[in-house]
Amino acid sequence: MEPRILELRGEIDRINRELLKLLSERARIAGAIGDIQTELGLSHYDPVREEEMLAYLTAENPGPFSDAVIKKLFKEIFKASLVLQEREDKRKFLYSRETKPEDTQVRVKNAVFGGEPLIIAGPCAIESEEQMFTTAEFLAARGVKVLRGGAFKPRTSPYAFQGLGVEGLRLGRAAADKYGMAFVTEVMDTRDVEVVSQYADILQIGARNMHNFALLKEAGRSHMPVLLKRGLSATVEEWFYAAEYILSQGNGQVILAERGIRTYEKWTRNTLDLSGAVLAKQLTHLPVVVDVTHATGRIELMAPLARAALAAGVDAVHVEVHPNPKVAMSDNNQQMDFEQFDAFLNQVRDLLEPARASG
Amino acid sequence: MEPRILELRGEIDRINRELLKLLSERARIAGAIGDIQTELGLSHYDPVREEEMLAYLTAENPGPFSDAVIKKLFKEIFKASLVLQEREDKRKFLYSRETKPEDTQVRVKNAVFGGEPLIIAGPCAIESEEQMFTTAEFLAARGVKVLRGGAFKPRTSPYAFQGLGVEGLRLGRAAADKYGMAFVTEVMDTRDVEVVSQYADILQIGARNMHNFALLKEAGRSHMPVLLKRGLSATVEEWFYAAEYILSQGNGQVILAERGIRTYEKWTRNTLDLSGAVLAKQLTHLPVVVDVTHATGRIELMAPLARAALAAGVDAVHVEVHPNPKVAMSDNNQQMDFEQFDAFLNQVRDLLEPARASG
Amino acid sequence: MEPRILELRGEIDRINRELLKLLSERARIAGAIGDIQTELGLSHYDPVREEEMLAYLTAENPGPFSDAVIKKLFKEIFKASLVLQEREDKRKFLYSRETKPEDTQVRVKNAVFGGEPLIIAGPCAIESEEQMFTTAEFLAARGVKVLRGGAFKPRTSPYAFQGLGVEGLRLGRAAADKYGMAFVTEVMDTRDVEVVSQYADILQIGARNMHNFALLKEAGRSHMPVLLKRGLSATVEEWFYAAEYILSQGNGQVILAERGIRTYEKWTRNTLDLSGAVLAKQLTHLPVVVDVTHATGRIELMAPLARAALAAGVDAVHVEVHPNPKVAMSDNNQQMDFEQFDAFLNQVRDLLEPARASG
Amino acid sequence: MEPRILELRGEIDRINRELLKLLSERARIAGAIGDIQTELGLSHYDPVREEEMLAYLTAENPGPFSDAVIKKLFKEIFKASLVLQEREDKRKFLYSRETKPEDTQVRVKNAVFGGEPLIIAGPCAIESEEQMFTTAEFLAARGVKVLRGGAFKPRTSPYAFQGLGVEGLRLGRAAADKYGMAFVTEVMDTRDVEVVSQYADILQIGARNMHNFALLKEAGRSHMPVLLKRGLSATVEEWFYAAEYILSQGNGQVILAERGIRTYEKWTRNTLDLSGAVLAKQLTHLPVVVDVTHATGRIELMAPLARAALAAGVDAVHVEVHPNPKVAMSDNNQQMDFEQFDAFLNQVRDLLEPARASG
Repeated sequence: MEPRILELRGEIDRINRELLKLLSERARIAGAIGDIQTELGLSHYDPVREEEMLAYLTAENPGPFSDAVIKKLFKEIFKASLVLQEREDKRKFLYSRETKPEDTQVRVKNAVFGGEPLIIAGPCAIESEEQMFTTAEFLAARGVKVLRGGAFKPRTSPYAFQGLGVEGLRLGRAAADKYGMAFVTEVMDTRDVEVVSQYADILQIGARNMHNFALLKEAGRSHMPVLLKRGLSATVEEWFYAAEYILSQGNGQVILAERGIRTYEKWTRNTLDLSGAVLAKQLTHLPVVVDVTHATGRIELMAPLARAALAAGVDAVHVEVHPNPKVAMSDNNQQMDFEQFDAFLNQVRDLLEPARASG
Repeated sequence: MEPRILELRGEIDRINRELLKLLSERARIAGAIGDIQTELGLSHYDPVREEEMLAYLTAENPGPFSDAVIKKLFKEIFKASLVLQEREDKRKFLYSRETKPEDTQVRVKNAVFGGEPLIIAGPCAIESEEQMFTTAEFLAARGVKVLRGGAFKPRTSPYAFQGLGVEGLRLGRAAADKYGMAFVTEVMDTRDVEVVSQYADILQIGARNMHNFALLKEAGRSHMPVLLKRGLSATVEEWFYAAEYILSQGNGQVILAERGIRTYEKWTRNTLDLSGAVLAKQLTHLPVVVDVTHATGRIELMAPLARAALAAGVDAVHVEVHPNPKVAMSDNNQQMDFEQFDAFLNQVRDLLEPARASG
Repeated sequence: MEPRILELRGEIDRINRELLKLLSERARIAGAIGDIQTELGLSHYDPVREEEMLAYLTAENPGPFSDAVIKKLFKEIFKASLVLQEREDKRKFLYSRETKPEDTQVRVKNAVFGGEPLIIAGPCAIESEEQMFTTAEFLAARGVKVLRGGAFKPRTSPYAFQGLGVEGLRLGRAAADKYGMAFVTEVMDTRDVEVVSQYADILQIGARNMHNFALLKEAGRSHMPVLLKRGLSATVEEWFYAAEYILSQGNGQVILAERGIRTYEKWTRNTLDLSGAVLAKQLTHLPVVVDVTHATGRIELMAPLARAALAAGVDAVHVEVHPNPKVAMSDNNQQMDFEQFDAFLNQVRDLLEPARASG
Repeated sequence: MEPRILELRGEIDRINRELLKLLSERARIAGAIGDIQTELGLSHYDPVREEEMLAYLTAENPGPFSDAVIKKLFKEIFKASLVLQEREDKRKFLYSRETKPEDTQVRVKNAVFGGEPLIIAGPCAIESEEQMFTTAEFLAARGVKVLRGGAFKPRTSPYAFQGLGVEGLRLGRAAADKYGMAFVTEVMDTRDVEVVSQYADILQIGARNMHNFALLKEAGRSHMPVLLKRGLSATVEEWFYAAEYILSQGNGQVILAERGIRTYEKWTRNTLDLSGAVLAKQLTHLPVVVDVTHATGRIELMAPLARAALAAGVDAVHVEVHPNPKVAMSDNNQQMDFEQFDAFLNQVRDLLEPARASG
């Protein structure tokens, strides 16, 4: 090593240590200011003060760094102090494993989300008593513990079938009860949270409402288990924030569901973001579901992707099953019939055993 | 031309004409069936019947077309009859220029959307009386007729400032009244439509709620002018359908707002889809706004894109303006200050004249 | 069932059968024309003739279908005949399982793509003899049969390290030979296909060159095995067409690699499109690789996604491994070190057994 | 203001000033090291040294910052020094206005890109002498100075028409010469740069080859004007880097062309990213073209979007024009016929005057 460089690096080491000392001292003083601000109910973030500090620092900047670089470095320093302060205010996110390292389990009837590999299945929309009872009987006989079915349907067109409403809720509840299943159904309006809570075991918040913050808060206040689907083009971060809206109301029973995101690809209905589902397992403590029906829209892809999701460690897969998809009132092409579901089950069965190889 | 080909083409011409005759006859009979179905309240679409027809057609298929091709061709024929029937049921979309060829004008106070180039401006969030009155005074002096400001704010984090609520509505109304402006503000919950309608001139439905169908219907029932933003990653078709939800409730006063869509590009907040805005002008009769603030997130892009939007024929541009963006409680980096707005106005002024060159 | 409807449906059935007869006759005549065209070297598609037919059909259209619908239906009929003709010209896609139902196996040294689950591993870029030999020794000891390493590097910036070139090829070849591995490396220029073919066992065509048709053709003419990465935002269809470019030159040894597509999501480098990989297995007969390094860019996601890919039935996973990623000349953050690779291997080992549960 | 806070802020100010002094001193020493490294041909970036510094800094970290925060802050400081050093090595980007503030003008025949609003027009593919001469005559009569036409065509399918090759080049050259126009045509293979340069005035690098770095370099070495299209899903930053590949070879005659990016939207062929085009005008000194044909794929959108682009300040618009699009060998639906082009021209004419209102 060149001796001139070695010598100069000694100088750098000395300065580094002085910088470390000063940064730490600065952080302690900033902390003391923060405590006073908390005491007085003031915000920690004070943009006018930051502006003022940057003004004299750039005015006195001797170079060789440009003013822009000096501003950037000091903004990083300001931000670090601020974050430190906010953490002390216990603003840790409730969804995060840093706040709660152990897995959250959500128990509904006989099912434990986060405790055993599960399947959620049932028709897209609740259409009739016969349809729901036939489906529930079929699924229960195959060990499926959670029955889905929409009573309030989010439809692109106002003229499409909008669901049976409360009558649908009643049918779903009755079918689930008769066959000992839990019942999950979507709620779309803050004003319906109460009535849906009377019939359902789990409130579903659909992809189109993931950014409906009023609904998230109302679901949070309900203290019902909530199945929160990721939005059509929500980032993973926004999905976690949506969960935080529910958690922040004191409701810890949130289940996250990845259902594919919107991309340019045309051969599938959406693009399953399995990385997003795995990040949800790694970074949050909440149970995670993968909805292979909406993620693909193609029946032949559902078993391979369900296998993939289970092998990657998610807690449950979600599929749509209908006694006669051809006459279904919505999503005709992506609901499995009973035969298709049996074939699906055969393809994924080895990954549904509680003690999976991968941990 | 090869004579053998010419002769065979004569054969083809004869068959084409027979096909035309048969297809037309078939359509008339299908129409008669449809009328009976309408009379009896039955659905026109009967998948079991279609299945049955395809079964005998493929069973009797003499070739050379494969069964798959025969199915495809007949499905097209079935669909054409169905569409014909649905059109007769007057299922034309209310948003479409085919239903209403002439431009819809939405009048609020002194502003006519669809009648003159307009600017909507104001702060992201309503923060204080001083902020709103200062801004309204400044904007009114420059001829801006529509004041914006959020009282209920859709924020990614539940811990971010959520708006002043009803107090914000009151401040916005008062500022608009004092300076003779119209006031537009966002509504996020079906339960708030009534109270927001008491204070605002225009209800805004934000990008995150474009698929909140319960809210769209409630806004439709309010008979207030509605500014409908395109969803974060909504297709143009879905945006028009969202408008249809409002229109179908008997409320014709819908203004469409393009605000950029979510793409992979990182140097802008969103990607302005100007084609979408132009399609909205061409295919619907509704006024169209381009929100250059959310479309770009960069102040230096706002004037060029506003120029672009106006030159392309949209009815209004939407920008966020704040007396002191650095201390704003949201969107600090994308709100213009007064000086920036004056510069912006200078850059677009020639395109704000009512009689634009392009028609 | 309403008797009036039943009767009319009898009429429809009669017409359907006549249409079937006419369509079949028409297809036979069109076929005869097509044969003459083939004989004379003429194109089957004749837009002027189609225009002419549509002209008289709409002129003579008795309704109730609109002219637009008549045009649409006949265009479908024209297209069906054309496709029929093209199929007879043996224009079936070479990539398709319809052309070749059984799996293609690509053998290179001891590895059989399409015959056993494989791992492709090695550094992003070839940097030195020590780096390559250390890595090859380490990987070979763990049963990895295919060594990767870039000698020509596609870099966003012209000032970034561009690879060692031919010297890199030589080092990769020597390391692979010493440890009995196959060697795959990228080629970026038609003029380099020859030299890369002298050193490598498999030519890689990178994501950025998937639409470089000149390179695809040259790789096709080389008769070397080709690892074809899906483009940054290529559709599945375009990816298959790119494979067809290679196959159409008489080179059947194509391996498809999914490596994530570009989306709005920011927490991963790309979004793995596992549906795309499964469609490649279902619709083509070619071996399919999933590159979890570029698909995620995050080391903690690589094992779960490799598990997912293998459980879904792909033939191989691709990862980047470097003896000391911190000092690597490219992709510092996404290459695993040896310890990380051992942990990775432990997590996926149960899915690397030749006789996997899922078949 | 609370006096306790004021006092503590005085402390902060003192520390800020000491930090400023130390950071500046550190930067000067780092600069001295950098000069020695440059002298010795060593890299400025030394990850092992950085690792070593972070090791003792975290070992000696007294709090309250976590080790992670200390690492982050020092990495920022390291990076700032490195950037400083690299800038001194004259690694400023050649595309940037910081390097060259004034607009670059590219002159070809009678046209000056960057000096007057231009139209580039012509058929998608060169098909025949008659087609090219008719088109050139028509366009020249309307003042169009730049004729386009593809001789080497990038086609998704290997079985689609691939262009006339050198014969096409000859026809394009002859037509341009006869009517006094400049001729731009695409080059797809490094081996063709020479022959295309013999016939064309401007080499086009298409969207599918924007990341074909070998081709970019070869085009850079040719010293021909280059029209560089943005890739299908390239970021603005990647587009500028691609330009830098050409510029770095000593070829300053680069014209940037935005042609729409790939998004989920289905009603347009691509999504025009006008913000990207405006950023290209603001951040680079190169002329910028907007290709409204590929950006929209819909003829009725081309005039409004061309108006938008010109009003936003771009230098040229690019459209495809064909004497008889219905029989064109590619892109049938998006090429304008002569009548459509005349209508287009009427709609944009007021924005083609050299002295535009907006500057």
